[in-house]
Amino acid sequence: MSLNRLVIGNKNYSSWSLRPWLLLREFGIPFSEVKIPLYAEGSKETLLRYSPSGKVPAFCHENITVWDSLAICEFVADLYPEKNIWPPKLEDKALARSVSNEMHSGFFAIRNSLPMNCRKQMVFHPMTESLKSEIDRVCEIWRVCRSRHSEKGPFLFGEFSIADAMYAPIVLRFNSYGITVGSTESEYMSTVLSLSSLKEWIAEGVAEKEFLADCEVDA
Amino acid sequence: MSLNRLVIGNKNYSSWSLRPWLLLREFGIPFSEVKIPLYAEGSKETLLRYSPSGKVPAFCHENITVWDSLAICEFVADLYPEKNIWPPKLEDKALARSVSNEMHSGFFAIRNSLPMNCRKQMVFHPMTESLKSEIDRVCEIWRVCRSRHSEKGPFLFGEFSIADAMYAPIVLRFNSYGITVGSTESEYMSTVLSLSSLKEWIAEGVAEKEFLADCEVDA
Repeated sequence: MSLNRLVIGNKNYSSWSLRPWLLLREFGIPFSEVKIPLYAEGSKETLLRYSPSGKVPAFCHENITVWDSLAICEFVADLYPEKNIWPPKLEDKALARSVSNEMHSGFFAIRNSLPMNCRKQMVFHPMTESLKSEIDRVCEIWRVCRSRHSEKGPFLFGEFSIADAMYAPIVLRFNSYGITVGSTESEYMSTVLSLSSLKEWIAEGVAEKEFLADCEVDA
Repeated sequence: MSLNRLVIGNKNYSSWSLRPWLLLREFGIPFSEVKIPLYAEGSKETLLRYSPSGKVPAFCHENITVWDSLAICEFVADLYPEKNIWPPKLEDKALARSVSNEMHSGFFAIRNSLPMNCRKQMVFHPMTESLKSEIDRVCEIWRVCRSRHSEKGPFLFGEFSIADAMYAPIVLRFNSYGITVGSTESEYMSTVLSLSSLKEWIAEGVAEKEFLADCEVDA
């Protein structure tokens, strides 16, 4: 049995679950997976057995439980310091943490108007001022990070880090809903979309049978 | 000149600014303070000179800029490892991080219905189901943390930590709006409200001249 267990929601819909799942996979950290379909009968009670907040994702390491996507990422970074799960240089880690926390606490127009949905392709969506401004901010973040680290690799800080895990659901959303971005952002999106771990997540999400009307923008 | 600079918004209203400010003060970390009154003419442009997200708070250490309240707290914890800004034991740090991140990404009913306002006292507020459920969850978090650490001191993890900084604006809100809580939570609130640093923040907030109608629930 693995030391680590990750509790997630539906792969098709649960963008918060994807973040730590992708991080663990990309850093080769073994874990067992418990999937609890959200909003199904009894799912809240099942979830509370694993996660005191009643929300996914939650992570168990030996007898320690951590919940909330970014708390799990920070905990895992502490647990495996040799893996450089955050970029190792102080100034890079500062920037990576800033953009990861900015994602964690904001971008409500993107979250509400463009919910993650692995099955969706190119659904027209009306552009509001707040949605446009958040999309522009995400693109600015990606360009700034890439401009400082492009020589070290194709991810936001060269090598894959927590920042990429935090923005991966946004990459999926921009791709699904056909959001227009610049060339740097488009190259970055291709890099993330070509990860075999992410392709696996998407394939499993597409194959899920649950349909949550509240998570479908055109339901 | 101090190595550290913290950029904050109005002390009366800016709950996100209070968090890292209180942390720095409680851990005796010297910093200079730049206050930018929010929503005033030109404030957005001024803010963007300090904070790439255009939001408060932002923190500068030498030539490194970090923004977002929790990113600043994590950065400061890395910068001063000898101060135990997170609880030192792995399982305590895991719990402290979980509840701090849960605060950072959630509790929208509390944020929207009970905005922080140092000047407010006992304004009647209609209780909705989501507000009640969030208040209950905050109380549960405080009780769980206190039950495990009450012998080490009066804060959530015994000694003051990032978790207390993250929940301090909630203490202010529950106090301002007269929210009924249990005895453990009430004792914890008294502990936080008796901090001289917090009293100083409140006094300065009350003395501010700006009145932001959008941040007043009964304006």
